[in-house]
Amino acid sequence: MAFEKIKRSEDYSKWYNNIVVNADLAEHSDVRGCMVIKPYGYAIWEKMQQQLDKMFKETGHSNAYFPLFVPKSLFEAEEKNAEGFAKECAVVTHYRLKSDPENIGKLITDPSAKLEEELIVRPTSEAIIWNTYKKWIQSYRDLPILINQWANVVRWEMRTRLFLRTTEFLWQEGHTAHSTRQEAIEETEKMLEVYAEFAEKYLAIPVIKGIKTASERFAGAEETYCIEGMMQDGKALQMGTSHFLGQNFAKAFDVKFASKEGVNEYVWATSWGVSTRLMGALVMAHSDDDGLILPPKLAPIQVVIVPIYKGEEELKTVSQHVSTIVEKLKDENISVKYDDRDTQRSGWKFAEYELKGVPLRIVIGPRDMQNNTAEIVRRDTKEKISVSTYSIVNTVKKLLAEIQINIYNKAKDFQQKNIYKTDTWQDFENVIDKGGFAFAHWDGTNESEEKIKDKTKATIRCIPLDNITEKGTCIFSNKPSKQRVLFAKAY
Amino acid sequence: MAFEKIKRSEDYSKWYNNIVVNADLAEHSDVRGCMVIKPYGYAIWEKMQQQLDKMFKETGHSNAYFPLFVPKSLFEAEEKNAEGFAKECAVVTHYRLKSDPENIGKLITDPSAKLEEELIVRPTSEAIIWNTYKKWIQSYRDLPILINQWANVVRWEMRTRLFLRTTEFLWQEGHTAHSTRQEAIEETEKMLEVYAEFAEKYLAIPVIKGIKTASERFAGAEETYCIEGMMQDGKALQMGTSHFLGQNFAKAFDVKFASKEGVNEYVWATSWGVSTRLMGALVMAHSDDDGLILPPKLAPIQVVIVPIYKGEEELKTVSQHVSTIVEKLKDENISVKYDDRDTQRSGWKFAEYELKGVPLRIVIGPRDMQNNTAEIVRRDTKEKISVSTYSIVNTVKKLLAEIQINIYNKAKDFQQKNIYKTDTWQDFENVIDKGGFAFAHWDGTNESEEKIKDKTKATIRCIPLDNITEKGTCIFSNKPSKQRVLFAKAY
Repeated sequence: MAFEKIKRSEDYSKWYNNIVVNADLAEHSDVRGCMVIKPYGYAIWEKMQQQLDKMFKETGHSNAYFPLFVPKSLFEAEEKNAEGFAKECAVVTHYRLKSDPENIGKLITDPSAKLEEELIVRPTSEAIIWNTYKKWIQSYRDLPILINQWANVVRWEMRTRLFLRTTEFLWQEGHTAHSTRQEAIEETEKMLEVYAEFAEKYLAIPVIKGIKTASERFAGAEETYCIEGMMQDGKALQMGTSHFLGQNFAKAFDVKFASKEGVNEYVWATSWGVSTRLMGALVMAHSDDDGLILPPKLAPIQVVIVPIYKGEEELKTVSQHVSTIVEKLKDENISVKYDDRDTQRSGWKFAEYELKGVPLRIVIGPRDMQNNTAEIVRRDTKEKISVSTYSIVNTVKKLLAEIQINIYNKAKDFQQKNIYKTDTWQDFENVIDKGGFAFAHWDGTNESEEKIKDKTKATIRCIPLDNITEKGTCIFSNKPSKQRVLFAKAY
Repeated sequence: MAFEKIKRSEDYSKWYNNIVVNADLAEHSDVRGCMVIKPYGYAIWEKMQQQLDKMFKETGHSNAYFPLFVPKSLFEAEEKNAEGFAKECAVVTHYRLKSDPENIGKLITDPSAKLEEELIVRPTSEAIIWNTYKKWIQSYRDLPILINQWANVVRWEMRTRLFLRTTEFLWQEGHTAHSTRQEAIEETEKMLEVYAEFAEKYLAIPVIKGIKTASERFAGAEETYCIEGMMQDGKALQMGTSHFLGQNFAKAFDVKFASKEGVNEYVWATSWGVSTRLMGALVMAHSDDDGLILPPKLAPIQVVIVPIYKGEEELKTVSQHVSTIVEKLKDENISVKYDDRDTQRSGWKFAEYELKGVPLRIVIGPRDMQNNTAEIVRRDTKEKISVSTYSIVNTVKKLLAEIQINIYNKAKDFQQKNIYKTDTWQDFENVIDKGGFAFAHWDGTNESEEKIKDKTKATIRCIPLDNITEKGTCIFSNKPSKQRVLFAKAY
């Protein structure tokens, strides 16, 4: 294995990239800022998709699909949204190539195939969707509309990092339409809860639920809710957002409905999304210097079995023994791989599956067979457990459940230890500097927020939903403050 | 319901569009040539995806994701492929919009954000994928690579029709790499079999497996295999293709591997795909003047239950009775909907679910309750069956299986009756004219193929795989021919 380890303590950013590439999750492509998601990485993303999709359907949503392209005139309809994304739009201007007359075998854009109106590759789909909803909504009977879309989107990023910030990324975007403000706010909050539950129960990452300040709000939203996770370097990662859009898009696209009382009113909207960024969160929250650590619920391979043997005859005997174990595990819906390749030594395999974050490794050789035992190694703690073959299925089930909880608890513990109530500028700077969340008073002005960002690179991650009112003075301006907010450097 | 029926016999094309739009499958968007796939249509597509994905994984394939954009220099690397798609490419030339100085609130493409190299929105992904495989393949140990991608692609079409031909469409594209010609051909054929099985067992559409002539071949392929279905107007619809790409892409991107013997050789390739076109096939193969007819295996709702009642009290009693039936059906994994809306009359509901192609409708009123019976109506035959409540689950299971087979048999019967061996030009023209497949001798030249197309609009759909050699004379040129091929007008 050509995996040269990099320690988190040496260079966190390089460590991250090294794991992502070597664990076969993703790699940079030759298209500026775009990544290739490799089969192993995509298998994890598929598990995320399946679970999220289930949760969306359980909360009454259906999937649909809207066009990739947004005509410029629709794109600019909601001005704040347009302004927010204009600087990072891929623009289609032509619909044909032709042979380059000066260069045989080469192609050039055909100037005669210039579009009358440019098409924007969707950076998000509110515009195209609300232009469609306009046709679907006449009366209160047509509401609510509860739709989700799994799609690719493009935002032209200058500095990209695998999964965390790429020009093209995969995501889901929910777009709902409601007859009342209250119902739309409830939807926004409901989907934030879905994201939080998914993050904690599946990704095993504790999150803080909160509201964004005006400056961090989604362009076109009245309120942006978010979940924020803490990575192992103490930085924050925004893991999902849920937007209450008010009537902004309804007004921009003139979408009204006749209420029960027969009055024509603008429709209320929400949108919410998570993306392949969650793959980055997964890596940065749990993994160690030896590679990935995957929560069992999202691991494409939950258990790998490696045989120990000398010669073909012994391999045959061990394999026969293992095959019954494999069957039993599969019967319990445990995803198991038996790696009997004779091209690699067992030590190589151990390192490989550590790198890939497989939660449990079972090693079985002739001696284990005689004793009716097997050795199980946990990826999270590296603990070795000798187990009787008879109870192996139950032990595996128990351990997978334990690992899922253990890595959550570990992340939770880390998060708790790295959130600091800071009351002096000195303390504040120290926390931000060494990595961690500073829970500090803020005077509520954009001015202080900007200056803090300039001085420390920390942004307000959110105003936590469970905040209590507490009188204090702003960490920066010393002006009066009503509550603490959460500051951190962020990905 | 504002559904104005159009008869197939009056205007097949309008009938098709009318069903697609009114059954809530899809609609045209305001983006030229792009459609919106509505939730009900998307739910059918999801069922197709799930089944296909399962079949791909069972045959050893993994999913991955490659960039949406293809830099022009990569796009033009395989010349035939590039030439084939150049005329229908959406081209991204800029990466930013800015405020229009002459028009407040409007945006224009920022001329200072012109890309050095244009990006093509993928019409198919061979180029970007083989440019990536180059990095992944060094030795025979890296082969085979068996990857599939679910994605959107863009081909600029001048005349579009919902599902059948749209500028953007959804599809899957398999891209595999092999160490020998033989293995790649076997893969090509294996995936054709997967498509044929899916078409016949799930879509309930009989298909003819065959090979395309040179002129109908995928640009860049050595051989294109296809499955061709027959629609109710006797026209052909190409439902899936599987390409043996030879070493064309390996040569274009210089992808070589060290063989076991240590010799550097070019890699062999295949690609294969089906798209949202299959939704069009589903509609055109089975549906009738009253709406969709869905094969139970792909129906989002397999059974709808409509209560008959007078007043709230009666509805309550019926609903209680129905709820136990619903539970029993769900226990058997049957997708069931109970429509107890009081805003619509039962007659309206019957028409609605006929339009939507729900395979079985169960009607239950107080009299049925007293007699412990229910009325079941089949969508395919409109037959009404009175059934005892005790045996309702078994009857539903039996009927769903029967419908799946019946609509296949009906389509098979239609197909058989509309394939004609034609041996005179007059007969040939008649068959093509009235709609149907003409199985006729062809001299094997592109010239005759072209002239037949000019005169009759019929193309060679395929040379069937199970063809027998048979001496004859070309239907058009009267020159000697070795075999019959299948001609038809096609979508």
